[in-house]
Amino acid sequence: MDTLHVALIGFGTVGKGIYQCIEKQREQLESLLQKKISIDAILIKNAELQREVDEGTVVTTEFDELLNLPQLDVVFEAINGVEPAETYLSRLIEKGCHIVTANKELLATSGSRIRELAATHKVGLRYEASVAASIPILSTLREGVRSNQLSEISGILNGTSNFILNELQEKGITFEEALRVAQDKGYAEADPKNDIDGWDAFYKILILSDIVYGQQPKWENVVRKGISDVTSFDIKKAEAIGLRIKHTANLSLSAEGPVISVEPVAISNTHPFFNVTGVNNAVCVSSNLAGDITLQGPGAGAEPTASAMIEDLLSLHRNSTDAVYYSSLEKAEDGDQNFLLIGDDAALSNLTFLPSSEEGAYYATGNRRDIEAALQTHPHVKVYPMYGTENRLTPQIELI
Amino acid sequence: MDTLHVALIGFGTVGKGIYQCIEKQREQLESLLQKKISIDAILIKNAELQREVDEGTVVTTEFDELLNLPQLDVVFEAINGVEPAETYLSRLIEKGCHIVTANKELLATSGSRIRELAATHKVGLRYEASVAASIPILSTLREGVRSNQLSEISGILNGTSNFILNELQEKGITFEEALRVAQDKGYAEADPKNDIDGWDAFYKILILSDIVYGQQPKWENVVRKGISDVTSFDIKKAEAIGLRIKHTANLSLSAEGPVISVEPVAISNTHPFFNVTGVNNAVCVSSNLAGDITLQGPGAGAEPTASAMIEDLLSLHRNSTDAVYYSSLEKAEDGDQNFLLIGDDAALSNLTFLPSSEEGAYYATGNRRDIEAALQTHPHVKVYPMYGTENRLTPQIELI
Repeated sequence: MDTLHVALIGFGTVGKGIYQCIEKQREQLESLLQKKISIDAILIKNAELQREVDEGTVVTTEFDELLNLPQLDVVFEAINGVEPAETYLSRLIEKGCHIVTANKELLATSGSRIRELAATHKVGLRYEASVAASIPILSTLREGVRSNQLSEISGILNGTSNFILNELQEKGITFEEALRVAQDKGYAEADPKNDIDGWDAFYKILILSDIVYGQQPKWENVVRKGISDVTSFDIKKAEAIGLRIKHTANLSLSAEGPVISVEPVAISNTHPFFNVTGVNNAVCVSSNLAGDITLQGPGAGAEPTASAMIEDLLSLHRNSTDAVYYSSLEKAEDGDQNFLLIGDDAALSNLTFLPSSEEGAYYATGNRRDIEAALQTHPHVKVYPMYGTENRLTPQIELI
Repeated sequence: MDTLHVALIGFGTVGKGIYQCIEKQREQLESLLQKKISIDAILIKNAELQREVDEGTVVTTEFDELLNLPQLDVVFEAINGVEPAETYLSRLIEKGCHIVTANKELLATSGSRIRELAATHKVGLRYEASVAASIPILSTLREGVRSNQLSEISGILNGTSNFILNELQEKGITFEEALRVAQDKGYAEADPKNDIDGWDAFYKILILSDIVYGQQPKWENVVRKGISDVTSFDIKKAEAIGLRIKHTANLSLSAEGPVISVEPVAISNTHPFFNVTGVNNAVCVSSNLAGDITLQGPGAGAEPTASAMIEDLLSLHRNSTDAVYYSSLEKAEDGDQNFLLIGDDAALSNLTFLPSSEEGAYYATGNRRDIEAALQTHPHVKVYPMYGTENRLTPQIELI
């Protein structure tokens, strides 16, 4: 049996996960690949930490040592940030290595450059794990609905934010307390900015935009809000009228190109996101023939991420292309939308809203720009776009 | 540009859907395939019905006319039942035609014979639409989690049953009334046996068993219950303690081979199936690395079914194999399970159950065989396996 030579860049949670999962499933993988798998090298940052790896595996802090291995078929990249990842991957691609990566920031920033480089050098580039870990969203977009036109993709793409909002809802604690719980459980970093300010979800939805529409919106045109403004009070008010606040990312298409928003929204109990709890992720794809398809599962974690990366390894053997689909456009409707407004009654008294069963929580239907304009003089009123109510809420209300 | 020659067998809801979807998406499909698509022929049963199809398309009641077309690349099979479908497909495969089918009864009954025949004649055989229409469950099993070991697959696989149970729950009407609503809406056939007796879900889970474990359990060993015994009373009792009754199919593996049950179960609000309403389907795949992944969407209908079949057509161009995965086994645990028991208090008084907030609705934890044995003298007590409660319910209860 031939041998497939692989290497890992990074040996943190994900890198270790890949190593361990390959060992755990070695028999099954080698039977699927009809090749032996050899983990030839692991590139690490801190030489002083102990590594429990096979004796035959080179563990090094020098990238060149990995690059100069006599034969290397596939490299798993499992570090964060654009550099040095971009330099590493570029040099490996130029050498003819296939790449499997989970690096969302890199793909959101330099994805098209790296895809082009991979195409030029005829190597495979796979990144299913970069969006929602083991949930097969990229492969579904590439091979499950590509005969369709897509009108919208929305997702709970950041498990940390979802966990914190869930804690706020269930325990009525403060944002700071919930963040501390998330950090204690290892769901949030010491510096949580990337998750709670919406950057992580932002990178992921940009990757989907690249895949689905072959382009990204200008970053400065993207609404990107995190969860740090969401309070237990908002969550309770929403809950009192049957809604939950979730942090989502949304992608659709206008005549000018892709439109993205990353923000907290209000979800009704008829929407598949209503019950997505803990660190789970979910993605809903709205298409013209297949209908609305929702995929739900773990959005992070060593094993789910490693699983997606190992599936990518298997898919390299199928030699499918990495092309961009959905180049034909469907214009997103620029019509009215439903919103949940939270604010004290005095602040909202000069606006005519739909009466609600809960004081201080109101529904509004209308054009987003109009509603935001009407609320400009009410900075304390929170506006949450609503998911799960398909029709405009009746009786129709007028914003004065 | 080359031309891809296709034909349809059947021109009912699904057949017409395929025809119309190909017309609707023709530009996108031809660009993806880099071929023109020509629908050369349609095999129909009733010559007297008007067909609105292109003049160049032969519409015939004679299978031989379709079989003898000078060149035919792919045939979409969209009729029901084993015969004459099996004869038609066998002859087409022997002639070298690729096959796309949605025929679940045929695949459950003769799938392995047809797969072998297709392999022998080196033609593609695709059937994503046979299980849960446009939900990409087959491709996820084939390409999204094949490095994993699967411990369980469960699904709401029959949209008609799900719709009827939903009607019972929301409207408190009788089973017969709910069935009539389903028939009026076109969700249930005039003869609804196939759906409400669990046959449809049974065929679908058998197809998954073939794909995942390469084998089926003996049909006589499968628990197959429909929904006709579920009453509004049961649903109300369950609802009072926060549960919903859903019809599901379940596949796992024991040392003796695959184990399947098709029956109504009780779902807690933490389970992804809780909010699957209307004619929707959902499938949950439990795997050792990727975790629990749930796919949800339309489980039937002309366009979602046609979409899946057209995606199959596209996948034929990728030339991926139709092999069986997951041949390595993971033994399903034969341990305790949680159940919801519904019956009047008198009937249950000599059993010690966990106290419940609702009279007549009780939780029990234990081995299924023991519980059913203990209830043998209580034929009016309904037993629903419970989904969504991961741990045994405490305080632990003893069945006397």
